[in-house]
Amino acid sequence: MSIQKLENQVIVRNEKFIETAEQLKPQLHETIVKPSSIVEIKADSNVIHGWKSEAVAPASSLADSEYGKNGSFVLDFGDHQVGYLTIKIRSAGSPPDAPLKLKLTIGEMPVEMAEPFENYSGWLSSSWLQEETIFVDVFPAVISLPRRYSFRYVKFDVIDTSPKYRVVFESVECKAVTSANINAVQKISHQDEELQKIDEISIKTLADCMQDVFEDGPKRDRRLWLGDLRLQALANYQTFGTNDLVKRCLYLFAGVPDDKGKVPANVFVAPQLIADDTYLFDYSLFFAASLHDYYFATSDLETLKELWPTAYRQVELALERLDENKILKDTPDWWSFIDWQEGLNKQAPSQAVLIYTMKQAIRLAEELNAAEKDSLKDRLAEIEEATKTYLWDEKQQFFISGSDCQVSWASQIWMVLAGVLTKEENKKLMKRLLAENPAVGIATPYMYHHLIEALLVSGEKELAIAEMKNYWGGMIQDGADTFWELYDPKNKDFSPYGSHLINSYCHAWSCTPTYLIRKYDL
Amino acid sequence: MSIQKLENQVIVRNEKFIETAEQLKPQLHETIVKPSSIVEIKADSNVIHGWKSEAVAPASSLADSEYGKNGSFVLDFGDHQVGYLTIKIRSAGSPPDAPLKLKLTIGEMPVEMAEPFENYSGWLSSSWLQEETIFVDVFPAVISLPRRYSFRYVKFDVIDTSPKYRVVFESVECKAVTSANINAVQKISHQDEELQKIDEISIKTLADCMQDVFEDGPKRDRRLWLGDLRLQALANYQTFGTNDLVKRCLYLFAGVPDDKGKVPANVFVAPQLIADDTYLFDYSLFFAASLHDYYFATSDLETLKELWPTAYRQVELALERLDENKILKDTPDWWSFIDWQEGLNKQAPSQAVLIYTMKQAIRLAEELNAAEKDSLKDRLAEIEEATKTYLWDEKQQFFISGSDCQVSWASQIWMVLAGVLTKEENKKLMKRLLAENPAVGIATPYMYHHLIEALLVSGEKELAIAEMKNYWGGMIQDGADTFWELYDPKNKDFSPYGSHLINSYCHAWSCTPTYLIRKYDL
Repeated sequence: MSIQKLENQVIVRNEKFIETAEQLKPQLHETIVKPSSIVEIKADSNVIHGWKSEAVAPASSLADSEYGKNGSFVLDFGDHQVGYLTIKIRSAGSPPDAPLKLKLTIGEMPVEMAEPFENYSGWLSSSWLQEETIFVDVFPAVISLPRRYSFRYVKFDVIDTSPKYRVVFESVECKAVTSANINAVQKISHQDEELQKIDEISIKTLADCMQDVFEDGPKRDRRLWLGDLRLQALANYQTFGTNDLVKRCLYLFAGVPDDKGKVPANVFVAPQLIADDTYLFDYSLFFAASLHDYYFATSDLETLKELWPTAYRQVELALERLDENKILKDTPDWWSFIDWQEGLNKQAPSQAVLIYTMKQAIRLAEELNAAEKDSLKDRLAEIEEATKTYLWDEKQQFFISGSDCQVSWASQIWMVLAGVLTKEENKKLMKRLLAENPAVGIATPYMYHHLIEALLVSGEKELAIAEMKNYWGGMIQDGADTFWELYDPKNKDFSPYGSHLINSYCHAWSCTPTYLIRKYDL
Repeated sequence: MSIQKLENQVIVRNEKFIETAEQLKPQLHETIVKPSSIVEIKADSNVIHGWKSEAVAPASSLADSEYGKNGSFVLDFGDHQVGYLTIKIRSAGSPPDAPLKLKLTIGEMPVEMAEPFENYSGWLSSSWLQEETIFVDVFPAVISLPRRYSFRYVKFDVIDTSPKYRVVFESVECKAVTSANINAVQKISHQDEELQKIDEISIKTLADCMQDVFEDGPKRDRRLWLGDLRLQALANYQTFGTNDLVKRCLYLFAGVPDDKGKVPANVFVAPQLIADDTYLFDYSLFFAASLHDYYFATSDLETLKELWPTAYRQVELALERLDENKILKDTPDWWSFIDWQEGLNKQAPSQAVLIYTMKQAIRLAEELNAAEKDSLKDRLAEIEEATKTYLWDEKQQFFISGSDCQVSWASQIWMVLAGVLTKEENKKLMKRLLAENPAVGIATPYMYHHLIEALLVSGEKELAIAEMKNYWGGMIQDGADTFWELYDPKNKDFSPYGSHLINSYCHAWSCTPTYLIRKYDL
C-alpha cells in the first residue's frame, strides 16, 4: 500500500491488487486482415452523414496502379478492425530523388474519409481523429505504423513524390488484435434474422473493445470505465467467457482508490496504472455491481473475498450522500453519469442505482456471510420506503427527480431495475412511460440498454424486442459494422461533442444486445 | 560484373568496386547538441527573406513552461546541425485523456520557421520541406525521430492536447553526425578576420555534408554528385584529410557505369547502390579530375591503377562528341551542367572542361606510363588548336559559344582554368571579363568557385580575394552558419526552384573557400 499525492487527488495504491491485475494481463490474439476493395466515397443525402462507400475495384488490383503527386484512393477492409497497419511501397520510374510524403486518414465510417479533419471544431481533442503524415526516404519500404487504429476505411493521399518517380502500394494489411476468446462463443441460429444480426454485431463490437482491458471505444478514449465495464462483462459472460479480463479490470480499480476508499470512474493503464481524477457517483457503485456479476458468473470466491471490502466501501460512501429523509442530496458538487441526456436531473436515477447496487451487495454479503449483511438490509428497507415516499408522485404515477420534480425516462427505468415497486407496478410504469413519453428522454445506447432490460424485468418482452430492433436494428440499417457510441434515430447527425467525426463507431456500452438476447432468451 | 537492365538505362555493375566502396563505409562521429535559445521569428524587411530570429530566453528555461492547444515556440540550436532529434515530453495537469498532436517544423533559416510550408508551390518536391506531425499516446514519452534533419531551428506547434492536460518539453537534443575527422583540421589564424571566418564556415559546411558519402546538401538531395564530389574532395584534402571517403565515392561511381562505360552524374546509396539515370557531360569527365586530385593528394597508386580505365573511358566518350572541327557538337540531346545560369550555352565551357580534364588524364597516364598517354597528348593539341580557331573571337577578345556566338562568364572562366591561353593572356581575359561584364553571368557558388580559381591561376590574387569576400562574405553578413546552395547578392530571394523555402542552406559546392584560401595562401 502506498500513498500518491497528485495535483487533484490522493491515491492509496494497493500494490498487491495491482500485481494481481498485472499477472492477468492478456495475450492478444492477432489476425492478419487484408482490405477487400478500393472504394469511392460518394455524397448521398439519403444515408447517414450524407456519405456512402461504393466498391470500384478489388483491393487485389491495388498493386497494378502507380501513384504520383496528388494521387489518392480509399481502401475498405470490409468490416470493422482494431489493429496495426503495415504498408509495403515500392517506387516506379527513375530512382526516387525525393522522399514520399504520404497522408493516411483512418476511419470507421465513410464520413471520416469525406469530410476534412482540418475543419473539425468539436470540443473533444482533435488528436483523436485518426491520421498520419509520413515521409518515406528509401524504397522499397515496409512501413509498420506503431499506433493502433480502429477503422474500416483507410484513405491514402500521396501529397508528393517527385516528377521523376511514382509509388506502388504492393500491399496493405492490418494485424487485428483482441483479447476476446472468439472461438468460445456459442453461435445461435435465431429464427429472427434481425436479432441474429444484432447478436453478431454486438459480439463483434465487444471483441473489438477487448484489449489489455475492456476499453470503452478503441478509436476514442481507449480506456477502462467502470460503468462500461459492467455492461461489457455481462455481454462477455454470455459469449467469450474471457472472465479473467473482468477480474483483471476489477483489481485495477481496486488497486487505486482515493484516500477515502472511493474507486475512480476510469483508469489508464499506460505507461502504468493511473487513476483518472474523475469520480462518478453511479460508476463507483458499479464496482459492487460488477463484482456481483463476476462472482455469480464464475463462483470465484477468493476474488469475492478479496474485493468485497472495496465493493462495500463504495456503498458506504454512497450512503453518506443521503439526507435526513434518506434521499440523495442533489447539490451542484456531485456528478453521477446516468446518461448524456441534456437537462437530465440525476437525483432519482442515482437513488435507484444506489438501491440496485445495495441489493447486489447484500447478495454478496450473504454469500460471504459478512457482518455488514444485516445493517445493509436495514438501510435498504429505509431507503426503499423513503424513495416511495419522497420520489414517487402518486398523482402523475411517475418517479420524480430534483427540486423541479422532473419526470424523466431515466428515473422510471432505473427505479424499475432497482425493483422498488412490484413486478406488476413496474409493468404498468413502463407502459405508461412509453405511452406518455416524457420530454426528458434517453440519449445513449448505454441508457437504451437499461430501457430494454427494464422492459424485460417487467415482463414486456415484445416491447423490449421492438425497442431493440428499432434502435440497434436502426444502426445496422444505417451501416453499422459495430455498434456506435451514439445514435439518435431522430437526429442521426447528433454528437454531444460538436462533430460526428469524433464519435466512436465501435463502442463497448452498445454491445449489450447479445447479453439481453441470450440471457432473456429473446 | 553484372548487367542490370532498368527502365531507362543499362547498368554494368562492378561488384568488386562496389565491395571496395562498401568496406570503406565510414563510422559516423556523433555529438550531442542542445539548443541554445528560445527565439522569436520577426519580420524585418532589412534582412534576407524578410525574417530574423531574436533570442527571448535561454533554452534551459524550456522545461519551466506548460503548453496546451495552440501553444508554440521555436528553438535555436545556435549553429547549423545535421542529425537526429530526441524530445522528452511529460504531461501536466490531469492524466492525459487524449493523444498529443504535435507538429514540428525543422529549418536551416528563420524563413522556414515563418512562412507556412502549406503555401509552397515550387517545382521541387514539397516532401523535402522538413516537418513532422506526430501523435503521442502515452506520457512521459521519449520521442527519437528516425529521420535525419539539417537545421538550426525547430518550431514546435502543439496542435492539440485536451482541456485536461498540458505538456512540458523536458529536453530537446540533437545527435549531430558527420564522417569528417574534425580534429585533423589545422587551424589557421588569418590576419584577415573575414577570410578567417569564411574559412571556418567553409569547413563547417563541408563537415555537415560529409556523411556516408559526400552529400551535395544534407537537407535536400542528400546525394553523391560527381561535380560536387570533386570540389568537396579538394576542400577535404586541405582540411580533414578524410581521404578514404573520397576513395569510397570514386569506387561507388566506378561500380555502376552504363553499358558504354559512362559513369552517372550521381548515385544513391540506399537501400543499396543505385546509379541515377542522369548523365552530365561535364560531371562524367570530373571522374577523371577527381581521380587526378585524389592521386596527387594521397599517392595511392593502387587505386589509380584500378580506376584509371574508368577515368580514361570518360575522356574517350567525351571525345566522341567532337565534330570534324574538333569542337563539341551543340545539339539538343546533351546535357552538360556547368552552372544554373539561365540561357547559358554549354558548348564552349564544356569544351574547356574537356581540355581541363584531358590535361589531368595525361598527368595520370604519365604516372602510370599508360599506353594512352601519347594519343591523348596528340588529341589534346588538336583540340586546343581548334578551340582557339573556332571558339576564340579575335574581335571581341572573348571565347564564344554555340550557334549564337554567346559570350558568357562561364566560357571565359573555364577556358582560363583549362589553360588554353598563356598566363598573360588569361590575366587579360579575366580583367576584360570583370570590366566588360557580359550579360550571361554566373548563378551559383559552384561557378563562383571557378571564377575565383580562374582569377588565382591568372595571378589576380587581390581580385580573387575581393570576389570571395563579396560573395561568401556577403552570405555571412546575411546570416549564413554554413554556405548556401544559391546566393545572388543582387537578388537575395532568388531560387531556381520557385521558392527560397526549398533552397539548401548548407551545400557542399559552396565549401571551397577553405581550399582556395589554404591552397593559394590567400
